[in-house]
Amino acid sequence: MRLAELSERSGVPTATIKYYLREGLLQPGRRVSATQAEYDEGHLRRLRLVRALIQVGGVTVAAAREVVAAAEDVSLDHHTRLGAATWALPRVPAPAGDDAAAEAAREAVTGLLARLGWDPERAEIAASPAYRTLLDSVAALARLGYPCGTETLLPYGRVAAEIAVTDLDLVLAEPTADGQVEAAVALTVLYEPVLLSLRRLAHAEESARRAEGDGTG
Amino acid sequence: MRLAELSERSGVPTATIKYYLREGLLQPGRRVSATQAEYDEGHLRRLRLVRALIQVGGVTVAAAREVVAAAEDVSLDHHTRLGAATWALPRVPAPAGDDAAAEAAREAVTGLLARLGWDPERAEIAASPAYRTLLDSVAALARLGYPCGTETLLPYGRVAAEIAVTDLDLVLAEPTADGQVEAAVALTVLYEPVLLSLRRLAHAEESARRAEGDGTG
Repeated sequence: MRLAELSERSGVPTATIKYYLREGLLQPGRRVSATQAEYDEGHLRRLRLVRALIQVGGVTVAAAREVVAAAEDVSLDHHTRLGAATWALPRVPAPAGDDAAAEAAREAVTGLLARLGWDPERAEIAASPAYRTLLDSVAALARLGYPCGTETLLPYGRVAAEIAVTDLDLVLAEPTADGQVEAAVALTVLYEPVLLSLRRLAHAEESARRAEGDGTG
Repeated sequence: MRLAELSERSGVPTATIKYYLREGLLQPGRRVSATQAEYDEGHLRRLRLVRALIQVGGVTVAAAREVVAAAEDVSLDHHTRLGAATWALPRVPAPAGDDAAAEAAREAVTGLLARLGWDPERAEIAASPAYRTLLDSVAALARLGYPCGTETLLPYGRVAAEIAVTDLDLVLAEPTADGQVEAAVALTVLYEPVLLSLRRLAHAEESARRAEGDGTG
């Protein structure tokens, strides 16, 4: 298909598509003349993915390029590509700090990984942004004086493990390896707002149930 | 305590504290002279909360003011204050759209609430940002062609309900009503990065386990 049709079918303006092409977020089309290129279903899928990362996931253009590059790095084995793509996804930066709270957070998280039976070397050696975000968020809780020890964190770790099984089942349901890598990125990012908004709705439900239960609502 | 001590104990620079006071994010101190005011432990807690919302939660100053106002509105009953404070928390804006995907999302979410036994009027009438975020995120999944029907969403709804029980237990462990409202805001925001980073670490674990299991890693 030509650029105009790619724009029509994806709902992304042609100027934005040209910008994504220049920025390396979208693979170039097959050139058919000096001024025209041909695009296929792969371009359409990638375009939707990039759009979803940026618009729904709030991912920056630079970070989206990194994610796409990781997803395309065929020098990595398949499971590493799955991981590289999702681990490259950025998180809201948390304040750095090296104090008693940071130390307490390291202890709590180390204990948590042990209780969950997760491999601490896998988490730490990869120096994953997710691991740093976890440490920083737990340290922020500690600084505010909220409970955040291993036992408090454990139920959150358990539901995360539960969700990961559901997530991986969805990803591996995609028939091709490239489709799985793309799905891993898309589902990681797109299910984050799903999960967080469901949690907030569940708060309202749970709070209302308790209010009805104890008659003080 | 004086401003200098409040700054020392909270780790927030005095210029930032003065800015928060001007913006209504922090209640004024008790004036003791023409140029000095006295602050107490309540100021310290509020200051830490505002700092956490803005620095860890990535909440804007305007949104933080709205959250703080909802938390302080004593004309509301206690459970409504808990809800108002957390529902005022903003989410990443999702693209608007009224197409087949948006319609599919409405159907899937309506079905989901029914399956979970959640009150749809509670979710919709309040016109909560969480409900809109849920619809928008599910519509984005539908546009990308990923599975996002009621049955696919159900496991995410179930873990959200599970997490909400843990969350509410933590909130209600705070001894005072004001402390509970503050904890509801802080724990909602601060446990979001905890939960999302744990989910990403769990992905790595789960993916590695399956790779070891099927020998293709």
